[in-house]
Amino acid sequence: MTRTIGIGVIGMGWMGEVHSRAYRAIQDRFHESAFLPRLVICADAVEARAQAAQQRFGFERYTTDWRAVIADPEVEVINVAAPNSMHLEINRAVTQAGKHLLCEKPVGRDPEETILSAAAAREAGVLTAVGYNYRWAPLVQYARKLISEGQLGRITHYHGRFLNGYAADPNGFLSWRFEQEQGLGTLGDLLSHVIDMAHMLAGPITRVTSDKEIFIRQRPIPQPGKGTHYDVGSSDSPKGDVTNEDYVSTLVHFASGARGMLEACRIINGAKCDMSFEIHGTKGAIKWNMERMNELQLQWRNDANPAQDGYTTLLSGPAHPYHQHFNPAWGLNLGYDDLKVIEAYNFLSAVASGQQGEPGFKEALDVAHVQQAIIRSWTSQSWESVGA
Amino acid sequence: MTRTIGIGVIGMGWMGEVHSRAYRAIQDRFHESAFLPRLVICADAVEARAQAAQQRFGFERYTTDWRAVIADPEVEVINVAAPNSMHLEINRAVTQAGKHLLCEKPVGRDPEETILSAAAAREAGVLTAVGYNYRWAPLVQYARKLISEGQLGRITHYHGRFLNGYAADPNGFLSWRFEQEQGLGTLGDLLSHVIDMAHMLAGPITRVTSDKEIFIRQRPIPQPGKGTHYDVGSSDSPKGDVTNEDYVSTLVHFASGARGMLEACRIINGAKCDMSFEIHGTKGAIKWNMERMNELQLQWRNDANPAQDGYTTLLSGPAHPYHQHFNPAWGLNLGYDDLKVIEAYNFLSAVASGQQGEPGFKEALDVAHVQQAIIRSWTSQSWESVGA
Amino acid sequence: MTRTIGIGVIGMGWMGEVHSRAYRAIQDRFHESAFLPRLVICADAVEARAQAAQQRFGFERYTTDWRAVIADPEVEVINVAAPNSMHLEINRAVTQAGKHLLCEKPVGRDPEETILSAAAAREAGVLTAVGYNYRWAPLVQYARKLISEGQLGRITHYHGRFLNGYAADPNGFLSWRFEQEQGLGTLGDLLSHVIDMAHMLAGPITRVTSDKEIFIRQRPIPQPGKGTHYDVGSSDSPKGDVTNEDYVSTLVHFASGARGMLEACRIINGAKCDMSFEIHGTKGAIKWNMERMNELQLQWRNDANPAQDGYTTLLSGPAHPYHQHFNPAWGLNLGYDDLKVIEAYNFLSAVASGQQGEPGFKEALDVAHVQQAIIRSWTSQSWESVGA
Amino acid sequence: MTRTIGIGVIGMGWMGEVHSRAYRAIQDRFHESAFLPRLVICADAVEARAQAAQQRFGFERYTTDWRAVIADPEVEVINVAAPNSMHLEINRAVTQAGKHLLCEKPVGRDPEETILSAAAAREAGVLTAVGYNYRWAPLVQYARKLISEGQLGRITHYHGRFLNGYAADPNGFLSWRFEQEQGLGTLGDLLSHVIDMAHMLAGPITRVTSDKEIFIRQRPIPQPGKGTHYDVGSSDSPKGDVTNEDYVSTLVHFASGARGMLEACRIINGAKCDMSFEIHGTKGAIKWNMERMNELQLQWRNDANPAQDGYTTLLSGPAHPYHQHFNPAWGLNLGYDDLKVIEAYNFLSAVASGQQGEPGFKEALDVAHVQQAIIRSWTSQSWESVGA
Repeated sequence: MTRTIGIGVIGMGWMGEVHSRAYRAIQDRFHESAFLPRLVICADAVEARAQAAQQRFGFERYTTDWRAVIADPEVEVINVAAPNSMHLEINRAVTQAGKHLLCEKPVGRDPEETILSAAAAREAGVLTAVGYNYRWAPLVQYARKLISEGQLGRITHYHGRFLNGYAADPNGFLSWRFEQEQGLGTLGDLLSHVIDMAHMLAGPITRVTSDKEIFIRQRPIPQPGKGTHYDVGSSDSPKGDVTNEDYVSTLVHFASGARGMLEACRIINGAKCDMSFEIHGTKGAIKWNMERMNELQLQWRNDANPAQDGYTTLLSGPAHPYHQHFNPAWGLNLGYDDLKVIEAYNFLSAVASGQQGEPGFKEALDVAHVQQAIIRSWTSQSWESVGA
Repeated sequence: MTRTIGIGVIGMGWMGEVHSRAYRAIQDRFHESAFLPRLVICADAVEARAQAAQQRFGFERYTTDWRAVIADPEVEVINVAAPNSMHLEINRAVTQAGKHLLCEKPVGRDPEETILSAAAAREAGVLTAVGYNYRWAPLVQYARKLISEGQLGRITHYHGRFLNGYAADPNGFLSWRFEQEQGLGTLGDLLSHVIDMAHMLAGPITRVTSDKEIFIRQRPIPQPGKGTHYDVGSSDSPKGDVTNEDYVSTLVHFASGARGMLEACRIINGAKCDMSFEIHGTKGAIKWNMERMNELQLQWRNDANPAQDGYTTLLSGPAHPYHQHFNPAWGLNLGYDDLKVIEAYNFLSAVASGQQGEPGFKEALDVAHVQQAIIRSWTSQSWESVGA
Repeated sequence: MTRTIGIGVIGMGWMGEVHSRAYRAIQDRFHESAFLPRLVICADAVEARAQAAQQRFGFERYTTDWRAVIADPEVEVINVAAPNSMHLEINRAVTQAGKHLLCEKPVGRDPEETILSAAAAREAGVLTAVGYNYRWAPLVQYARKLISEGQLGRITHYHGRFLNGYAADPNGFLSWRFEQEQGLGTLGDLLSHVIDMAHMLAGPITRVTSDKEIFIRQRPIPQPGKGTHYDVGSSDSPKGDVTNEDYVSTLVHFASGARGMLEACRIINGAKCDMSFEIHGTKGAIKWNMERMNELQLQWRNDANPAQDGYTTLLSGPAHPYHQHFNPAWGLNLGYDDLKVIEAYNFLSAVASGQQGEPGFKEALDVAHVQQAIIRSWTSQSWESVGA
Repeated sequence: MTRTIGIGVIGMGWMGEVHSRAYRAIQDRFHESAFLPRLVICADAVEARAQAAQQRFGFERYTTDWRAVIADPEVEVINVAAPNSMHLEINRAVTQAGKHLLCEKPVGRDPEETILSAAAAREAGVLTAVGYNYRWAPLVQYARKLISEGQLGRITHYHGRFLNGYAADPNGFLSWRFEQEQGLGTLGDLLSHVIDMAHMLAGPITRVTSDKEIFIRQRPIPQPGKGTHYDVGSSDSPKGDVTNEDYVSTLVHFASGARGMLEACRIINGAKCDMSFEIHGTKGAIKWNMERMNELQLQWRNDANPAQDGYTTLLSGPAHPYHQHFNPAWGLNLGYDDLKVIEAYNFLSAVASGQQGEPGFKEALDVAHVQQAIIRSWTSQSWESVGA
């Protein structure tokens, strides 16, 4: 007997759409599951957006009041895709209502908010998930499997980064994304993914020393109604100061003894979405980049035949985790949105089984602790222990 | 006022699923459209499969009788994803019923069947579409745009191919795919895509000379219930003869005066889905490969600064056709199934507007004529004119 | 006791320089050899060029009369790098003098000249070599080894090509390279390399059908003293007709039963020196491109673990043939000129041992026979047997 | 009138050979120069090696006493390729003799030795050069030119690294390379190249914080006569401790305000010679990797046409610095040794003109100061100013 899980989605921007689409895809992509998502209600402060999302994704109803989603008796789990500034308040309300939740990343605008959300969830005993979607690429999961089986040997060092150009235009408006008071900059937005990926693949980070910089120090002050970071002003608009970091770089130690370098930047003229890792071990190495999410570079130490030593390029296919839920062939790409389907499936599986999955608020908390240590190191100009 | 288009899907194998999924995605991906697909009924000879598909994709009903789909008064358009051997009969019945249809490729098992289907559609005056899905990659459409604008100059030569390994295992069963009586081999299955792509990008092919070969001459005779080409026998199973081509290569002339080479093979140990083209013109060159469907290689003749001459790698993004319907970012991959959504959208747009779109049976007919000329050249050992 | 081999080089253009440099490098790169080249004399019709070459490469003397090179009693072997139009006459004189010779490719301007040169050498019983230099890349030699050991299984099909842009500028002068009376166009210049490589890697070609085209039909008539194909006229210069082929494409059968496609073009706006091959076999595949001559793509059929199936990129290193003569490390590139050193070494090794090596005039003759069949097929519009 | 420069080479290991070969090539590759190298004398403690080198490269004489090289009145410039442990003593003797010198890197086993060598050269007023050969790839020089012209805009951050596997085998002997007393580990051997490249391309580094690790903590104690780091012991040999770093990572600030990450490791199972940089600026980005030294990745911010935004892959050709001295064509690779020819040419040009060139001991000193700051940061666990 298939169990139905009533879902409410709060916030119908891009991520709200992606999550709604993902839930809707589960009955298709994971049709053999013992549960079925029911898209009960969606919320957005802008009524037209909420209404459009209802039609587009097939929610039973919509609202402009996010509290109505939580209060809805047919909603068992809540998906939080509202602006980051509202995450803490919503997360608290959801957990107080004893409902499970998937919160899009970053859980908090700063580590402290994430810690508060995590505490709230822990106290309430609800199940949580976080939108660290890059984890879910089949070849990333395959990399994880290889590493956990010890096939790379002992991990020696890890390189992770996220290079993105969404803020590369110096005339991009001074939106909330660029204001320290509204939260972290690149450390929150981009490096959080990098830290989480490093944790998943190489284990806990224990020590850090970090650097940061603002490369575009002033931006045009947004005109009313044009505040998103994708809009562009003119070069002679009045300007205000960017107050959070464009760039962050970090040296890290892992609990395992491995070393690492992490880096993120939001003003790249070059790569589009270079969310990538490169991992070296005593028996081999592995590389992946979101821009080619359907490929994995893999190399084994080949003592027997050094003439045939080299990186092998794997293409995503049915022998890799989850791929067969999307197509049965080799060389047919999965897309970005498919990662969100896997994410949603894993969250609902956790809900159906009552077992907390990964990544949940626990993993977001782990990221937050690393972020805190990074921020401390910016001031101390020295190495900082994570969680100390 | 949104117009609703009632859809019936015949055949619920992989392609039937992909098409059903695609229709279902239109209200999301193309939510601003003036029409809305309604998934009325699906059919499969295996009842369990039809029933499962109904649940999975949300059809209103299912049937084991494909004629019931055609007869259904709420079905306005039919999607034919049945086995190739049934295409002609179904296509005839659909067109006789005056309904529009999308037929998965190959329309016919051989060119003659395609010609008959095309004639039936033409006589009935119905709108048609064919599943040449690789056309729909945003960067392929972008390549088409560049070429049609003359940005590559005059096309000099075209290289197209499809290398696939689905039949690479010599112990893969002797399914219908390997029997001449059941239709063409690689010429029908793989080279049809290559021919259609060449037609779209470089215009009509007018002359050909071709070669073919069977590299794996015998295969295990399938045991009852294990007849698909993905199943594998043991090397000591009784074997039968493969009677259609594993490999086909062709030199071609285009009406424009351009020259070309086309090639396809189904027993590749190497590439997974190397459905690719490489086009040279008097001002530049362009390359694309399905294995990296989100990338396009582009080069301009750079007389002004030869030091900066080279192939540029474009990543699919919102400035390319259709991409923004899937995500608003650069560097976030689309997947294979997304191409089918674009295909379905274009088909339904044609239906909604009453205007025949591309690729329809007309384009399949063009492919069939090239296939016929290729087959003639196998016998004549000489160049053959297309359509003569 | 090291044997000294007296060398004369005829023609001190680019290739004459490259060959002279190569001989000079042997005492370094192959210092353990039992022979030592002695650069006796160089010749060029332009005295200043001959004199400059003497100083640059350390010849003992120079001459403007190529016959003096042949007559020189201290010259044991002759290196022919004169204009193609002089090859036959020089080759005949060399062989009549009973001296061994390395002739830069193409040996003849057309197949008939090559046949005559080959006959002359055979009758005289001298040792010969031909400048098919791409053979000598360490990773090409390694590919040859893998194939000959059967590691790719039975070769099924071969793709070879040479895309070059040396004549891409439509205002490049109408030099001798573009005149049929002066010899073949792309078939001689570029496809000869492709044919030779195919012969080496996949064995003799037995049947062909081919196409050709002139894409740039007129070019500026050269002004006196500006006749090389690298010089460029203005677009309003008086023009004359190009009379030999810019482009050639060919389908081939190999004696082994393998099939193939060969292609060459000299007016490419794109690749710079895409002299490449791609070989498929029943157990794997292999790819190489001169533009990345220090890399080889290699794939094995991986039944045991399809999840790790993919092309492996090898970098040239000391485990590959000849590499260690240039450096002892992995990942340190060899250069183009190094291939000529290996070529010269192999020629002199043959001379020292008295054993004819490969590629000699025999291999050039094999290429010529394929070229003849290609030319016949241009007229017959049909398949032609090689050597028939 | 061509000036002759008498050269002595001390140390005839691999680097001594490469340098000797390079000098010998100058009269060919830079034949239009106003100077001519004269290979006067070579020295090696092992007489057979010195003698072999004499024959191989054409030195007029050889010696086993390096002081004899310095004392030789016909030697004007000295090339130091002796073991690192002898550099300081030799450099001092050379400069005291008032002769110019090229010292292979690292100039000193530790920064202090480099500082002493630099001081000696400065006091003596001799001209110096250092073997930071990667600088000399034509496309690296081209990158330098683009950056210095401001074509990348203001540099924001720099990523440089050197991943090499020469010590990847855990059974590689515990040679001098692994002993702190014999000098730095990876910081000296590999990161020195990375620092120098960063200095050349992005200007002086002013602050650093760094990490290091020994990943293979014990290695087999070398047996007599088998002490090089390329030899391999058995896993049950007696072992001793590795006392210098396998791995070093560093965050850096440049004087320009740019930020950076530098990394090096000698125990890589993966890349072979990934000596690479990636530079981001406000107008574009640039990438280069020694493994593909004939390619450069270049991207411009493309506001006018984001659809055509992407990395362009340049191939080394005659429009790039120095390339035409090696061949006149596009797409024909230069090799590693060619970089040493350019290095030697630039050194001798400096000698001929009496003008100190780059990189000289001044640039090695700059590297040493960064290394000192890195070492201090290992202890202080904090940021350190360079040269403070």
